[in-house]
Amino acid sequence: MVTKSQVKYIQSLGHKKFRDEEGVFVAEGPKIVGELLQAPNLRLRQLYALKDWDGAPRQSQVIEVGPPELERLSGLSTPNQVLAVFEKPSFPPPDWDTGLHLVLDGIQDPGNLGTIVRIADWFGIGQVFASTDSADVFNPKAIQSTMGSVSRVNVVYGDPEAFLAGHSDLPLYAAVLEGRRLGEVGRVARGALIIGNESKGIRPGVMRLASQPITIPRVGKAESLNAAVATGIILSHIVG
Amino acid sequence: MVTKSQVKYIQSLGHKKFRDEEGVFVAEGPKIVGELLQAPNLRLRQLYALKDWDGAPRQSQVIEVGPPELERLSGLSTPNQVLAVFEKPSFPPPDWDTGLHLVLDGIQDPGNLGTIVRIADWFGIGQVFASTDSADVFNPKAIQSTMGSVSRVNVVYGDPEAFLAGHSDLPLYAAVLEGRRLGEVGRVARGALIIGNESKGIRPGVMRLASQPITIPRVGKAESLNAAVATGIILSHIVG
Repeated sequence: MVTKSQVKYIQSLGHKKFRDEEGVFVAEGPKIVGELLQAPNLRLRQLYALKDWDGAPRQSQVIEVGPPELERLSGLSTPNQVLAVFEKPSFPPPDWDTGLHLVLDGIQDPGNLGTIVRIADWFGIGQVFASTDSADVFNPKAIQSTMGSVSRVNVVYGDPEAFLAGHSDLPLYAAVLEGRRLGEVGRVARGALIIGNESKGIRPGVMRLASQPITIPRVGKAESLNAAVATGIILSHIVG
Repeated sequence: MVTKSQVKYIQSLGHKKFRDEEGVFVAEGPKIVGELLQAPNLRLRQLYALKDWDGAPRQSQVIEVGPPELERLSGLSTPNQVLAVFEKPSFPPPDWDTGLHLVLDGIQDPGNLGTIVRIADWFGIGQVFASTDSADVFNPKAIQSTMGSVSRVNVVYGDPEAFLAGHSDLPLYAAVLEGRRLGEVGRVARGALIIGNESKGIRPGVMRLASQPITIPRVGKAESLNAAVATGIILSHIVG
């Protein structure tokens, strides 16, 4: 049985304000929830599941719900067996001086942001700096796109100009439409790759601090690439 | 002024059945509509726009609407100035024996399919073969993700096993989790790259016909990459 106040609570977590106040986020579906349940730096708060879901860890209290109740709780168009509320992951303090990182300048679509976090995780990047006007990684849509990577990638929000100015000793790469051809860049072991807003790109103030503009050579006629796709392409060439 | 029957007609085009019967599709927003209006192989059928939209071609009849009317017509959560109905693009008969193509085996998310079409266009790929259970490229969400590339990339639907069996003389690459490392593959001038379903990958019957399995090396811990991101990464390495 699900109470009205439980439904209201879960729905309130669609808003950043309430997620921040509570320090929690919502994940849905057996694949993502199953992966997050195994993350050592996440604590489960609530778990709602259909009777036939068999992924519950032994010690956890599962609130069994029927399909119509799950539908009332779910933010998905097709609810998928299980919905969990987790406390936000804990991470060690970020270290920007070692390894390669991402800097996101105004990635506004939560799906794009979540996909970028998943890509970062694939390429072994554990720290992402995002401008405060970027989407929240704990937004339900972003969480679904991260496919569980949210427990492994630390997304830190702040002012990218201040951040980059404070790390001007690092090689700072920027994904742009007119820069050095990606194939000529080679491997990058240290520094940051800056990815800009989906339609406006990187802000001039941020761009001024980037030392190395990179471009994915275009063969055909599309005007641009999706921001997450561009991130994946560049990382696949410079990480390794 | 927008009539009830106009609203009903536009909404019906959210369904493949009606799009196919009418041979049309809907595009929204100044950027995509603006680009599609310039495509030589597309014919405009209807154009609804706010008063302040200034992108209308001289000879076209614009139906001026107010924001609440556009909201009634729009499939977007935030309607964006203009909505157009186009006839589906006309293409020359596909030629699969020359150049590199994509084969999509069960790409079910319209956003992923549209993003893949945009990526194909960026890398100069003008022909995509998609299994009949893939998303429809004229689905409104797919159209928004193509960002205008739908007029330049011919997406042909059919049975991928029959298609590949009929083109077994071509080099047939497949994006898989266990294959040859992408960096070792080199440039590919001719053939097809097969991309599988978002969660299940390529069907065994299709996989059996692929001669060259390719893998994007994983450095970190994400279980997989988004299908569109994987497509972009592989193409960025083998096209050029």
